[in-house]
Amino acid sequence: MIVQQPVTTFLDALGSGSATPGGGSAAAIMGAMGAALVSMMCNLTIGKKGYAEVEGEMQSLLMAAEELRLQLADMVADDIAAFDGLMAAYALPKDTDEQKTKRSAAIQDGLKAATDVPLACARASAGVIALAMRAAQVGNRNVISDAGVGALAAQAALRSAALNVYINVPSIKDEAFASSRRDEINALVASAVPLAEQVYDVVKTQL
Amino acid sequence: MIVQQPVTTFLDALGSGSATPGGGSAAAIMGAMGAALVSMMCNLTIGKKGYAEVEGEMQSLLMAAEELRLQLADMVADDIAAFDGLMAAYALPKDTDEQKTKRSAAIQDGLKAATDVPLACARASAGVIALAMRAAQVGNRNVISDAGVGALAAQAALRSAALNVYINVPSIKDEAFASSRRDEINALVASAVPLAEQVYDVVKTQL
Repeated sequence: MIVQQPVTTFLDALGSGSATPGGGSAAAIMGAMGAALVSMMCNLTIGKKGYAEVEGEMQSLLMAAEELRLQLADMVADDIAAFDGLMAAYALPKDTDEQKTKRSAAIQDGLKAATDVPLACARASAGVIALAMRAAQVGNRNVISDAGVGALAAQAALRSAALNVYINVPSIKDEAFASSRRDEINALVASAVPLAEQVYDVVKTQL
Repeated sequence: MIVQQPVTTFLDALGSGSATPGGGSAAAIMGAMGAALVSMMCNLTIGKKGYAEVEGEMQSLLMAAEELRLQLADMVADDIAAFDGLMAAYALPKDTDEQKTKRSAAIQDGLKAATDVPLACARASAGVIALAMRAAQVGNRNVISDAGVGALAAQAALRSAALNVYINVPSIKDEAFASSRRDEINALVASAVPLAEQVYDVVKTQL
């Protein structure tokens, strides 16, 4: 798995002319970095003088952030698999009518998977932004900028994942599927992108 | 060096209760991912049918993006060194007047280094955003979303780095130094953050 390779190897692969890893993988890594920064802030708050009152809440935030971090790191592989699956569907033979029908169905399945992976990334990144807000509000003042960076990373992850949803949805023929995914991504962008800006403002005013 | 460790190890270290790597390192990695995505788009444009006219320009963009990617990846280590240097300065003895003077000077030097590293990260990230704009304008339409993700990653990197400049500048006593850094970061944020939004819009309207 590419996330078990060195950071520099991941960056080399990202920059190469290979179609994967691409923007979807970068989005998942940004989301995971956002979650890790929330965890960091929790870890640097728990047990610190003056933060005994919020210790229980910071423990809960830490568990939630670690769960999202692992989910997001796993999505790098999911993104590569979904993209490769879709490319494999496009490469299927299309000489006979039967082949055409089969290929068309495989492409539709591939498009759905390639929509649901970034949607899951966007959903998890929105979760990270909500955690970053709470961490910024009650966590250790000395490391509040890390909550701000966490929110920015998760915001970039969410908006990047949204681009990948927007790419695939127009080609999906199952209208109920397409419209439910379009609605969900629009709702996530509408709620979590401004929330990340609020985290940034909370952080910036306290520096 | 931490960038030679696996991605998952970097994420573990980022999330841990150790002060480094922190937001500054995450910013540098986001900037490097942004540069890598511009490189990817160049690599998937060069030699492709219909893009012969922009081949020379894409070669130049690729070289510039790769240069920025390497610079940004190196800044992870610079950020950790600057932060550790500043912490070491704060830890110096302060029992005698001589020690106090020495410690104070070391802290001032540390603050300057801890300002100039994120400023360099912000400058390089602004460079990535400019390259992403050109890549989005003339590069391969089929992978235009990667230029969009690249711009979002670099934008998050720039704004994150800016937070780290804002933290340190108020404590710097050398007014000429402080105001020149404040001016530069404000100018970078004012020009490159909206440019990244323009890249996003260029990309989104073409999906």
